[in-house]
Amino acid sequence: MAEFLTPQHEDFSKWYNEIVLKADLADYSPVRGCMVIKPYGYTLWERIREELDRRFKATGHVNAYFPLFIPQSFLSKEAEHVEGFAPELAVVTHGGGKKLDEPLVVRPTSETIIGHMYAKWIQSYRDLPVLINQWANVVRWEMRTRLFLRTTEFLWQEGHTAHATSDEAMEETMRMLNVYTDFAVNEGALPVIPGRKSEKEKFAGAVATYTIEAMMKDTKALQAGTSHYLGQNFAKAFDIQYLDENNELQYVWTTSWGVSTRMVGAIVMAHGDDHGLVLPPRLAPIQVVIVPIWRKNKEKAAVLAAARNIEARLRGLVRVKLDEREGLSPGWKFNDWEMRGVPLRVELGPRDIEREQVMIARRDIPGREGKVSVPLTALETTVQTLLDTVHQALYQKALDFRESHTYDVKTYDELKEAVQHGFARVLWAGDGEDEEAVKAETKATLRCLLAEPAETPGKCVYTGRPTDQVAIFARAY
Amino acid sequence: MAEFLTPQHEDFSKWYNEIVLKADLADYSPVRGCMVIKPYGYTLWERIREELDRRFKATGHVNAYFPLFIPQSFLSKEAEHVEGFAPELAVVTHGGGKKLDEPLVVRPTSETIIGHMYAKWIQSYRDLPVLINQWANVVRWEMRTRLFLRTTEFLWQEGHTAHATSDEAMEETMRMLNVYTDFAVNEGALPVIPGRKSEKEKFAGAVATYTIEAMMKDTKALQAGTSHYLGQNFAKAFDIQYLDENNELQYVWTTSWGVSTRMVGAIVMAHGDDHGLVLPPRLAPIQVVIVPIWRKNKEKAAVLAAARNIEARLRGLVRVKLDEREGLSPGWKFNDWEMRGVPLRVELGPRDIEREQVMIARRDIPGREGKVSVPLTALETTVQTLLDTVHQALYQKALDFRESHTYDVKTYDELKEAVQHGFARVLWAGDGEDEEAVKAETKATLRCLLAEPAETPGKCVYTGRPTDQVAIFARAY
Repeated sequence: MAEFLTPQHEDFSKWYNEIVLKADLADYSPVRGCMVIKPYGYTLWERIREELDRRFKATGHVNAYFPLFIPQSFLSKEAEHVEGFAPELAVVTHGGGKKLDEPLVVRPTSETIIGHMYAKWIQSYRDLPVLINQWANVVRWEMRTRLFLRTTEFLWQEGHTAHATSDEAMEETMRMLNVYTDFAVNEGALPVIPGRKSEKEKFAGAVATYTIEAMMKDTKALQAGTSHYLGQNFAKAFDIQYLDENNELQYVWTTSWGVSTRMVGAIVMAHGDDHGLVLPPRLAPIQVVIVPIWRKNKEKAAVLAAARNIEARLRGLVRVKLDEREGLSPGWKFNDWEMRGVPLRVELGPRDIEREQVMIARRDIPGREGKVSVPLTALETTVQTLLDTVHQALYQKALDFRESHTYDVKTYDELKEAVQHGFARVLWAGDGEDEEAVKAETKATLRCLLAEPAETPGKCVYTGRPTDQVAIFARAY
Repeated sequence: MAEFLTPQHEDFSKWYNEIVLKADLADYSPVRGCMVIKPYGYTLWERIREELDRRFKATGHVNAYFPLFIPQSFLSKEAEHVEGFAPELAVVTHGGGKKLDEPLVVRPTSETIIGHMYAKWIQSYRDLPVLINQWANVVRWEMRTRLFLRTTEFLWQEGHTAHATSDEAMEETMRMLNVYTDFAVNEGALPVIPGRKSEKEKFAGAVATYTIEAMMKDTKALQAGTSHYLGQNFAKAFDIQYLDENNELQYVWTTSWGVSTRMVGAIVMAHGDDHGLVLPPRLAPIQVVIVPIWRKNKEKAAVLAAARNIEARLRGLVRVKLDEREGLSPGWKFNDWEMRGVPLRVELGPRDIEREQVMIARRDIPGREGKVSVPLTALETTVQTLLDTVHQALYQKALDFRESHTYDVKTYDELKEAVQHGFARVLWAGDGEDEEAVKAETKATLRCLLAEPAETPGKCVYTGRPTDQVAIFARAY
């Protein structure tokens, strides 16, 4: 199978489309811009869900579910929000065979309908904070779609919180940005740059949007999660007020934050190689695959028995699969599991049984260098240690790649050059129009503004204005 | 709080609406027929999901995700299917500001879109069986809606499988009916009657529909899950064919099966009482609540410390919550947790600490009879045993209730009387028109046909035709 994959250096975009299909992550659907998430891809999403959900609950959040449909008039209540989302809406005009009095939009995001409910639920300071998350599908009518990266319908979680004070809302916004960073690093082996979006790039209706940006293997940026400080914009649009301790009416302060199935695309493009997926061990649907090897038929029974014994020992400790498929050569199976990015492959043949050992091959290091022979007595501990080792190695490799493709540049000419090869880290004091001009000329956008000021202030790479604000520019998904 | 609940005997329907709102399970939304599932209700749904999903995976199924939107023309490919669902469709006519060439329906169920994909994925007998489940939202434009029981949008799982033979598909249909029965009994403490739907009541497009029917406390029936044997209806409509071992093209045989958020309503109405919810322990979001009790302020610190110690001992073993809320009396808290149906309440005051014991009150047995004092040394084991005891007691109580409201009747007059008070178990050889006549006169419908024939054959209660087929008739949700 592997030989049919277009090499990344030849055409990264083609490689991506091929690997998503060939590794059975997803498929195109007959519905414009919508994809089917196949079982292997969905299991990866389930792992992402579990790890995010665990973190949300550990930070005091609970899940709930709000309607898919939103009255069209709700969108218009927040001026910037409707401006941002109106062009992307899918609209239900008929229900039960009749034309509706008011059309319903299919949620592109749920600030409005949730804002409406919060206005009903929140009466007193005792009701605050409200810390709710929703796992849901949303629809945005995109012009150009790509599997996982940009689809008309996608799956995501959207957190929506309400607080008594601005400080608490901002603290929540940053807490969730940190949760996303922690998830990306410790589950996805994905180094990310947290920062603030520019005014031009922020969420429609937010006061400020924070993002985590990751570098893909083609050196483009991918926004992997966002956390919005909404101030009182939606509180005022939906009249979410509470009586404070002095019995005075106050508007709440709200936040929202989301991660979507796009994360699957990030993982594919950050770690994958010319042989296929390379999945981070903590998210991999299958962490260890066992491939039994025999040449003569009389060896088969003993090898299979030993392989089943190994599977039994690992089951419960790691997500393990024994590949017992008939009529396929070990080599074919190796390629197949490499395509699917399984982190560790355990090979077991008659000679291994004799020597009371197995061979373990790491997906992240191709060929002989990635292989170790492990005595059966050390099986469990070695597998567990190796999974952590692979995780660290993937993270370090992605980080090194990003660092070696990040350029501190001083001039606009240098920026133009740098964004052809990776991230440009620049001093920036421009506005939205300046960003537009840079984008028109270079295709690069302002990915985020860093929290830390520059050690040495200087001049904006584009406007020449003095500043200590550091920005990352890159071409992006 | 509890005193504000309408008693069940006075107006069961009103009791239901009140308890769903007061126990914070759900709320009405501004969107016609759509509800908001609040965190407490959603956590109950998460527990239902987990227990069902575990069973699906244990029987070899995997999850995937298919598009929300379905081209309108797809529905028409299966004649009965479109006839059944056409009146209930929500239709998207506009996307991204433009009128669509072909309207998209919001999925009411996914046989059609999944059938289309299976036709693409299935080529050979080696690709079979396909055992996929989807967790999703679906939309059916209902005329009269009730929280959880019948809402325009609802959450559910829908399994869709494809098989090489009719026998295998039928085996799968029955396997999943058994999974649902096992879930209802062992997680929901819900006695259910499995059986086959009549031709009139079967799923639009199915060859046969199997159901589990439960009795609610008002003696009405509720269909709590269905499993459909679809024969080759959808295979032929969507051209799902495979090459068999003799290299001949064959149509596959398919099934589908689903359980929805309706299950929450079933649990509420099967176990709840005039004090509120009574949740089955294995699904309860909170299994044990600890209420610390003190009269004098100087007692507070010691009581809270002891309560926290108890919480720490139970955490990890059961889902436990310590109610530390200030300014609320223990009595108020008792009522509040009774309303929410927490199976066990641990009460702890200064005298209990002195005696090294706690009082444990069972939600399912009101008043003193439900209380036991438990030495602290036996805390963990007693709590775990009691949760099982409560589960068994709830199941037995619901079973006794159903049995005592199920009537074996021989004549149509008896049937008319019986369905006013519960289930009528009858011999039945009628057709759809006969069912229609019975419904018009009695409001009762044929809930299911039992697999077991009658011990003594006799005459159909309505048509007088000889038969050994046993049917359950009841008024239903």
